[in-house]
Amino acid sequence: MTASAQPSNADQIGSIVERLQGMLEGDLAATEKLLSERAASPVPVIPNLSGYIVSAGGKRLRPMITLAAAHACGGANHGTHALATAVEFIHTATLLHDDVVDDSDLRRGKQAAKNVWGNNASILVGDFLFARAFTLMVETGKISILKILSDASSVIAEGEVRQLAAAGRKDLPTEEYLAIIEAKTAALFEAAARAGALSAGDAGVQHAEALAAYGKNLGLAFQIVDDALDYGGTTSVIGKAVGDDFREGKSTLPTIIARRRGSDEDIAFWDRALDLEQQTDADLAHAIHLIRSTGAAEATIAEAKAYADLAKSALRTLPESQWTKALSDLADFCVSRAH
Amino acid sequence: MTASAQPSNADQIGSIVERLQGMLEGDLAATEKLLSERAASPVPVIPNLSGYIVSAGGKRLRPMITLAAAHACGGANHGTHALATAVEFIHTATLLHDDVVDDSDLRRGKQAAKNVWGNNASILVGDFLFARAFTLMVETGKISILKILSDASSVIAEGEVRQLAAAGRKDLPTEEYLAIIEAKTAALFEAAARAGALSAGDAGVQHAEALAAYGKNLGLAFQIVDDALDYGGTTSVIGKAVGDDFREGKSTLPTIIARRRGSDEDIAFWDRALDLEQQTDADLAHAIHLIRSTGAAEATIAEAKAYADLAKSALRTLPESQWTKALSDLADFCVSRAH
Repeated sequence: MTASAQPSNADQIGSIVERLQGMLEGDLAATEKLLSERAASPVPVIPNLSGYIVSAGGKRLRPMITLAAAHACGGANHGTHALATAVEFIHTATLLHDDVVDDSDLRRGKQAAKNVWGNNASILVGDFLFARAFTLMVETGKISILKILSDASSVIAEGEVRQLAAAGRKDLPTEEYLAIIEAKTAALFEAAARAGALSAGDAGVQHAEALAAYGKNLGLAFQIVDDALDYGGTTSVIGKAVGDDFREGKSTLPTIIARRRGSDEDIAFWDRALDLEQQTDADLAHAIHLIRSTGAAEATIAEAKAYADLAKSALRTLPESQWTKALSDLADFCVSRAH
Repeated sequence: MTASAQPSNADQIGSIVERLQGMLEGDLAATEKLLSERAASPVPVIPNLSGYIVSAGGKRLRPMITLAAAHACGGANHGTHALATAVEFIHTATLLHDDVVDDSDLRRGKQAAKNVWGNNASILVGDFLFARAFTLMVETGKISILKILSDASSVIAEGEVRQLAAAGRKDLPTEEYLAIIEAKTAALFEAAARAGALSAGDAGVQHAEALAAYGKNLGLAFQIVDDALDYGGTTSVIGKAVGDDFREGKSTLPTIIARRRGSDEDIAFWDRALDLEQQTDADLAHAIHLIRSTGAAEATIAEAKAYADLAKSALRTLPESQWTKALSDLADFCVSRAH
């Protein structure tokens, strides 16, 4: 079967995201305008650096969730655009600080901002975007929404510190891994969905919990798939963008499952290879081999699919619409990325 | 004349701050309690690191300004305590990120947090405290105050980036120096005073602009004196804590004035010595000599005194009370530190 005979998963992915982008065309244009306007500053490094990372080809997944959640509850408005922008600024600030903390050289296939402008500018422009996110939220005038996003911001930072503290831990329990990704990733997806719902007025208040549950489970599925993709997902092709977590010595679900299912020899391998002082260049290929041969790759994707299904279930209390359909398809998309 | 025959400036300083601490005893106790409670987290690094820097002997100058501003407008309340705590958290987050950016080894006479827990923990715990500051502000329920502190946070980050961009600039204009310190330091003093006033109710709204002007000018005076103290102020004793700015190649008011008043030879010295690749260990002593001999030290303090006087003038529209007297004395304190 050739790629042209049946659409590949990559094509389906593209079509779901593109469909949602089409449905949100006006809202996304308003959000892009705010993303550019609100990163403005008389200090040139600020718009240059933030423009570099903001325009580096992110999918705008989080703003799309905010916007679609609002539409699922009756409609997006100017406040929703401000919140979608704030959510993307918080995400961008996190990326800038993450790249410094992880010493990552690449982000979205380009040189990390820190490699172009330096660590210091990345730290400080991250702080600037984070503050600007709050100014945008303040402009919506809704204390309840401010609370959601400020609480989420503490939780994200807490998750990042927790991940830092877990680095180098050989026997990271699955529960601790899940607690870390719930904090560092799912909390913002959850807040993005909830804030979008609340921005839409009364119907939004009624459905905010359901959309928050959708966002949280979607975020968990998304991060688990991301962690699977870092070992090539379930495909046998090892792309260039593989092995970042491994080279940072991070335990993630694929390694946790592979280690748990492994022989004594395999466990000894993981303990040595995830210790950065003992890791060798040849270890990544063996790690991928073990993740495939123990079925850890499939088990990881199954775990992601379970969360994506929870996300879809959460939508059932909402009135059916093209928006609930699109949000549901987005959950499928998150899992299909892994294949 | 011996030190015991007449109180030294250091003694007067102590007495002014101690008097204010006494007047604010109950409010400061409530603030300290919040500082500790709101840095709590199940992730041990967070309370450990933030406790280390928060309890490292800061004077709580900014929270005292918030609290005293509220009292000058009728009284502090629980909301004022939350804001005083938020202001100190924002300040602490800034210190944590500053120490990473400046690669400073000492803070308040102790090892910088980054030297104990590492740069990464300092960046992420700074983010956490910044987010917690917003959660505290949200709890006050006052959008107008949230706007003040979120705007100030953008301005601070903008000032830090501006300072970064100015590093290594040989002929930094005085106006650019003032714009940097207004953003990185005075904006938080201004917001601290304004937020305190607004937390006090109607009288506070009436006097918020005056107290904001007080805070801004006090912040300028404070930072200018800090920059003078980095070259030993006007005393001839060179303490241990001298030369940080110099070793970072930062142009500050003392060096700007000394360079402007210097001979061609002096200008060549400044251009070489503030270039980190050409600076030698012997240069600091000569820099201090030039700052003293050109009268730049005295001129710097005179500039600080002018801002302190503006701060005091701003208080004149308020009803006189022990609080306006204490705030006025605090402005004198900021300048007297330099002698």
